[in-house]
Amino acid sequence: MLVALSHYQQRLEQQLTQQLDARPLTDPVLLQAMRYSLLLGGKRLRPYLVYSCGQMLGASLTDLDGPACAIEALHTYSLIHDDLPAMDNDDLRRGKPTCHKAFDEANAILAGDALQALAFEWLSLHPYQNVAPNRIVAMVQQLALQSGYNGMCGGQAIDLAHTDKKMTLDALEQMHQLKTGALIECAIRFAYLASPVDNEQHLAALVRYSRAIGLAFQVQDDILDIEGDTAVLGKTAGSDQKANKATYPALLGLPQAKQKAIQLVEQAQAELHSLPYDTTALAGLAQYVIARQY
Amino acid sequence: MLVALSHYQQRLEQQLTQQLDARPLTDPVLLQAMRYSLLLGGKRLRPYLVYSCGQMLGASLTDLDGPACAIEALHTYSLIHDDLPAMDNDDLRRGKPTCHKAFDEANAILAGDALQALAFEWLSLHPYQNVAPNRIVAMVQQLALQSGYNGMCGGQAIDLAHTDKKMTLDALEQMHQLKTGALIECAIRFAYLASPVDNEQHLAALVRYSRAIGLAFQVQDDILDIEGDTAVLGKTAGSDQKANKATYPALLGLPQAKQKAIQLVEQAQAELHSLPYDTTALAGLAQYVIARQY
Repeated sequence: MLVALSHYQQRLEQQLTQQLDARPLTDPVLLQAMRYSLLLGGKRLRPYLVYSCGQMLGASLTDLDGPACAIEALHTYSLIHDDLPAMDNDDLRRGKPTCHKAFDEANAILAGDALQALAFEWLSLHPYQNVAPNRIVAMVQQLALQSGYNGMCGGQAIDLAHTDKKMTLDALEQMHQLKTGALIECAIRFAYLASPVDNEQHLAALVRYSRAIGLAFQVQDDILDIEGDTAVLGKTAGSDQKANKATYPALLGLPQAKQKAIQLVEQAQAELHSLPYDTTALAGLAQYVIARQY
Repeated sequence: MLVALSHYQQRLEQQLTQQLDARPLTDPVLLQAMRYSLLLGGKRLRPYLVYSCGQMLGASLTDLDGPACAIEALHTYSLIHDDLPAMDNDDLRRGKPTCHKAFDEANAILAGDALQALAFEWLSLHPYQNVAPNRIVAMVQQLALQSGYNGMCGGQAIDLAHTDKKMTLDALEQMHQLKTGALIECAIRFAYLASPVDNEQHLAALVRYSRAIGLAFQVQDDILDIEGDTAVLGKTAGSDQKANKATYPALLGLPQAKQKAIQLVEQAQAELHSLPYDTTALAGLAQYVIARQY
C-alpha cells in the first residue's frame, strides 16, 4: 500500500508542477504563494483515493490526473484559509511556515481564493479521453456541493461556532463528516465518475467506505494529537487539548476512541467485500488511516 | 434600459432568495453572512448582462437564471474578501456595514469561500432545459478561468502589489481588465453558451463589446470617486485620492478620462452595429455605464 501511495504521490507532484509551470504569469507573488502551499507535501490522501479507486474501476491514469489535481488544489485552499489569524491562527503546517507566515495575510487569502478557482479549472478543462460531458458536469456538481456551505465550509463554520463550547458526540461527528468527510467522499465520487462503471449500488458501497475511513481518519488525528510526536506530526502535538477542543478521546476516553477507529476501519473493509473489484489498494488505505503516525 | 434593468434585478433578487430559502441549514451564522452580502443590493450589472444578452440570443429566462445567480454569487464573494482588513479594509459597502463588520472576520472569509463554491453549484446544478452538457462544462471553464489567477484574483494581486507605487496606464488597464473586466466578459460568454447561437464571430464581437464597457465602467468609477456624492455612491467619495491609488483621472487628467469613457462606449456601440440581433438593451447598458451617478 505504501508503495502505491508513494507512486501516486510522485505522479501528483509531477502533474501539479507541470500545470503550475505551464501557467502564464499574472502576478509573481500570488503564483509563488499558490505554489508554496500546493507543493508543501502532505499525504495526498484525496488524490490517492481518486487514483487508486479510479484505476480499480477501470479509469485511465491520464483521465484521473484532472480530478486528482483538482481535489488537492481545493484541499490546499481550505488549509490556507483555516490557518489564517482570524480562523485557527496556525504558524506551522507540515513543519513549515503557514502561507500567511511565509507571505502575508492578503496573499494567503488570495492564494486560497485562486486555488479554489483552479480546482474547478483543472476539473473542467482537463483533456479527458473517456469521460462524457455529463459526467464532467457531475464532477463539478460534486466538488461544489461537498466543498461549500452544505459541505466543507459548513463544517468549518460549525467548528468555529463551537470554540470553547461543549459539543455532543453527534455534533462532533456531523462537523467532521462535513469538514473532512465530504471531500474524501468527493474523491471517491470523482473516481467513479471518471470511470466507465455505471452501477449505483457499487457507488453507494464506495461512498459508505469513504465515510467510514473519513471518520476513522479524524478519530486517529485526535489520538495522534495526544500520543503523537510534534516533530513527526509536522504540527504541535497537544494543541487540541490546549485549545480545549472537542475530540473523540475527550468525549469517549482514549481506549474507546481507539476502539472506535478500529470499528470504523472494519466497517470500511466490510463495504469493500461486497464489491467485485480488486480492492487491495482501498483496503490497504483503510489500514493505513489508523496505522499512520502523522 | 432602466426599466429592463429593474425588471431583471427583481427576477434576480427573487431567484437568489428562493435558492437561499430552499437550502438545508448547516450553520445559521454562515448562512446569514452569505445571505446578508448576496442580498445587499447593488446594480446587478453582471446578471443584467447574462439576462439581456442571453434573451437577445434566444436563450430562455429560466435557463439564464442559473448563470445569472452564479455570477452574482461569485462577484459577491470577491467583494467580501476585497473588503477584509488584510485587503482594502473597508467598513462600508453599498451604504451598509461590510460583511466582516456586520459579522466577524472568520465568518466573512468563510462566507466568501462558500459563495465561490455556491457559484459553481448554481452554475452546474441548474435544471437547464435547452443547454447541452458540453456547454455547461464550457460555462464552468469560463467561470473558473475568468475568476482565478489569470483573471479576477490575478487583478486583485496586481492591485495589492501596487499599493503606494506608481503605475503606468498599460499596467492600470491590465489590472482592471483582470479585476473587473474578466467577470463582465464571463457574463457575456454565459449568455452566449446558454443560447442556441453557435457563431464564433458574433461571440468575438460581443466579447469586444464586454471589454469596452468593462473598462468604461472602471473609468467612470474613477471619475465618480472625484465627482460623486458619498451618500449616492454608498461608499466614501475621494477614497482613491486619499489612498494615493492609480486612477484614470490621476494618470490622464479628468477631462481626458471623461473623453476616454465616451470613446470606450462608442467602441462598444460599434461592435453591436455589426450584429444581426436587437441590441437595444446592450446599447442602453453601454450608455448607462457612463451616465450612472453610483
